[in-house]
Amino acid sequence: MMQENERLEKQLDFIREIDKEKEIFRQTYLADASRKENDAEHAWHMAIMTMLLSEYANEKIDVLKTVGMLLIHDIVEIDAGDTYAYDEAGKATQHEREQKAAERIYGLLPKEQGEPLLELWEEFEAQQTPEARFARTMDNIQPMLLNDASDGLSWREHSVKLSQILGRNKRTALGSEKIWDYAFNNILKKHVESGNIIDDEGVFSAEAGACVKASERNGR
Amino acid sequence: MMQENERLEKQLDFIREIDKEKEIFRQTYLADASRKENDAEHAWHMAIMTMLLSEYANEKIDVLKTVGMLLIHDIVEIDAGDTYAYDEAGKATQHEREQKAAERIYGLLPKEQGEPLLELWEEFEAQQTPEARFARTMDNIQPMLLNDASDGLSWREHSVKLSQILGRNKRTALGSEKIWDYAFNNILKKHVESGNIIDDEGVFSAEAGACVKASERNGR
Repeated sequence: MMQENERLEKQLDFIREIDKEKEIFRQTYLADASRKENDAEHAWHMAIMTMLLSEYANEKIDVLKTVGMLLIHDIVEIDAGDTYAYDEAGKATQHEREQKAAERIYGLLPKEQGEPLLELWEEFEAQQTPEARFARTMDNIQPMLLNDASDGLSWREHSVKLSQILGRNKRTALGSEKIWDYAFNNILKKHVESGNIIDDEGVFSAEAGACVKASERNGR
Repeated sequence: MMQENERLEKQLDFIREIDKEKEIFRQTYLADASRKENDAEHAWHMAIMTMLLSEYANEKIDVLKTVGMLLIHDIVEIDAGDTYAYDEAGKATQHEREQKAAERIYGLLPKEQGEPLLELWEEFEAQQTPEARFARTMDNIQPMLLNDASDGLSWREHSVKLSQILGRNKRTALGSEKIWDYAFNNILKKHVESGNIIDDEGVFSAEAGACVKASERNGR
């Protein structure tokens, strides 16, 4: 009985600790632009997206594994903080900060439960499995959907260039060509044309009106 | 191609719509008591709890199904609002308001995807399956953990009585006796003793110091 509670108490320690993820704010605004979203909300949104959009994965994925990966993948930011996608200085130290965080936080759990979660996070980072690739697609597309809904507010605030977005999304098509093609032709094109995204590539003007097979341009 | 995008666009309409869940605030405070939590954060937290605590379910559960159920079960509150557990007037009209909301919001999805989600929500409401029972346990225990961490702030603000908590938790042990026993003996007892919960039952004083087999008192 005592030992059994010891196990449950470790699990509850972890569950209490991750509450802090609700206070890590990202650069993305909610769809109605009222405020920025936090990591917990972002993870919840992507988990549901995965349940609905897994049919578009390039390769067959284990949905529970992918949902779990997305639910936990930002927990490291409790210690390491959110590194904005276009913050090059922050990105240089990101991996080391996050690895240390992962070891501390997953280490709160009973060993045989914490280790697989640490491995699941490492699998996401390594991007070598169908689940990790599709999770990355969700992680890139979810903020794009919110940026679209909030009229590009975050892109405008940071004067984001199309080349930066294409760089960040160079793996998006590896998880789902279908979703990347849609996002490229239906979201990015519109915001480049309206000036919310700075067009330093000339992609859309060169191919005016054409429906670009985005995955052939990028992401391979 | 056109028809394929039509399907994806319906899915994206739903994904954008549910962003509103991030602005539905509950009565529970975050663990650090800094602010109240919203439905999306609550769902994210419970989904991870389910992944970690499913071993304590009374009956074997399908974890993906239970996680999915918890991720989507508060979406109805986008139209129907959050009904506080101890708001008796609100609870009288809750079911009708939520049923209407579920039909509208899940109706945004392609039919063969929206209908199973509507049914999953109805399954949660009906409380007749192992997954629904365990999901209810999570839905009751998650705010209790936060109330505990935030020194009973929400209980104190609403002058909550132990009888109300036991009433609300009458199904908690049906999903997991182990978790309910733990919560009863380790969380509720402490907050009754400190006065954060009004003791109108005399449970703990009558059985002072004893480790009560809570599931035998309640929840059967």
